[in-house]
Amino acid sequence: MTIAPRHILSALPLLFAATAFAQTAPAKPKTSAEILAAAPASAWKAVPDEDLLLLDLDSGARVVIALAPDFAPVHVANIRALTRAGWFAGITVNRVQDNYVVQWGDATETKPLPAGMVTPTPAEYERSLAGLTLRPLGYRDAYAETTGHVGGWPVASDGKAAWLTHCYGMVGVGRGMAPDTGSGAELYTVTGHAPRHLERNIAAVGRVLDGIEALTALPRGTEALGFYKEGAPRPAIVRATIAADLPAAQRPHYQLFDSASPAFGEWVTARANRKDDFFIRPAGAVDICNAMPPVRKMPA
Amino acid sequence: MTIAPRHILSALPLLFAATAFAQTAPAKPKTSAEILAAAPASAWKAVPDEDLLLLDLDSGARVVIALAPDFAPVHVANIRALTRAGWFAGITVNRVQDNYVVQWGDATETKPLPAGMVTPTPAEYERSLAGLTLRPLGYRDAYAETTGHVGGWPVASDGKAAWLTHCYGMVGVGRGMAPDTGSGAELYTVTGHAPRHLERNIAAVGRVLDGIEALTALPRGTEALGFYKEGAPRPAIVRATIAADLPAAQRPHYQLFDSASPAFGEWVTARANRKDDFFIRPAGAVDICNAMPPVRKMPA
Repeated sequence: MTIAPRHILSALPLLFAATAFAQTAPAKPKTSAEILAAAPASAWKAVPDEDLLLLDLDSGARVVIALAPDFAPVHVANIRALTRAGWFAGITVNRVQDNYVVQWGDATETKPLPAGMVTPTPAEYERSLAGLTLRPLGYRDAYAETTGHVGGWPVASDGKAAWLTHCYGMVGVGRGMAPDTGSGAELYTVTGHAPRHLERNIAAVGRVLDGIEALTALPRGTEALGFYKEGAPRPAIVRATIAADLPAAQRPHYQLFDSASPAFGEWVTARANRKDDFFIRPAGAVDICNAMPPVRKMPA
Repeated sequence: MTIAPRHILSALPLLFAATAFAQTAPAKPKTSAEILAAAPASAWKAVPDEDLLLLDLDSGARVVIALAPDFAPVHVANIRALTRAGWFAGITVNRVQDNYVVQWGDATETKPLPAGMVTPTPAEYERSLAGLTLRPLGYRDAYAETTGHVGGWPVASDGKAAWLTHCYGMVGVGRGMAPDTGSGAELYTVTGHAPRHLERNIAAVGRVLDGIEALTALPRGTEALGFYKEGAPRPAIVRATIAADLPAAQRPHYQLFDSASPAFGEWVTARANRKDDFFIRPAGAVDICNAMPPVRKMPA
């Protein structure tokens, strides 16, 4: 008996290839990929140029991050100020901890912060739910009373406060023991099973939309907490840019699937009830970090 | 203002370094690391030599996997047969999909399986709860009525059936579209946010106890589903061994924290209510994949 690896574990978030296959069996419920492919343009929301942070690494890779000013406005303003001052150029990835985070910042801890930053920075770990349109996910969550989506963002709430969930690929602000010690100069992204216990303890400021593999496939740090050993080679950020600062023709454009669209609800239901040819028993549920809003890159 | 990266995000599963610090503040509740460090020897359960699979890669790294015969006995017997026949020697890692799986097997799909295997292999996706002592985790779960632990294993149940949860580091059996097409020759480990929807759809056969970074830090595959491109270099397994087949002095020994121990319950409670110097607001809950039983390697 031989195995056909290319058919194994085919149930993937964005398996557009499945579309053609399913068209031959029209009686089946649509897969989440089919729903996504059929969604109208209005179901996608552009990430504003001012919220798109581009990190160019010395490996030649680019990591694209969407910032979330609706959730951490002061931190996001600080990150824009750091970017525009050129502060991120030359800083390094200092920590790669398996199943946890990849973290970058000033390894020397001596680089002065630029003017125009708010420090100490308020502890923007949550905000008021008021003013946000939260589409509830509709399934149980271990950590929060409610999870769901606001536009293209994964969110949790206790009915009064709301905060970004700490899922794979989300970007947070490193800090010291005191809550107001994270300025935005030290950032990390989640690279393992969602450490949801960090929510409301740390500022989440965005999400990696593209290029995360340039961070996740880095050699793991060998020291405590996954820090690189003193003297070990460290990947460097050679340039950081806010997309709005590029000439219009050079700006990359990304869109997030918008929870305000009816197609979004269909997509969540399909994610929770996978019925493609691989699945025998649909879960009947999905957790918020397995329901991250799809991203697409638009032509320039 | 400078940042102290080494103090950032210090809330880690096994931060034994925190012990000394906390001793100066005895009024605080014990951290999960302190509970673990203080647990009696009886709280740890040895992984049997017959259940310990050692994969030596051409990089020189060793990946250590605990097999779970209580959950997938036929698959585990097949994996032992494959190992003892030398079948895994020379096979390659063929798929590295970010935030999902690393998968290894016979890329040529032509290598004949050895004698002594049961094929087609029964679809061991779940078993009866009867005969298992499940310690309920005690917190909500999106996917299952109950999650908890059986010995050193993370388990979910609907009250009748029980199955291993598909958490980071768990090992599963690749298969084709038909449920009985996975023999154990094609294996993968979970390397991202837990794809819990795979539970009851695929056989989980074990857990990576050591060396997972030799798999998770591999370059991501560039083809659909994260497969490596035809002709791209593929990491190879040069030798696979069941620990029981080694001379006694050469066998590695691993232990799992045992859910039957009272210390285990204290550990879960501390994981759900982190109150060390970093945490401002304990979550009050933990999900099963953030409560993976701790592992320790014993001296030879």
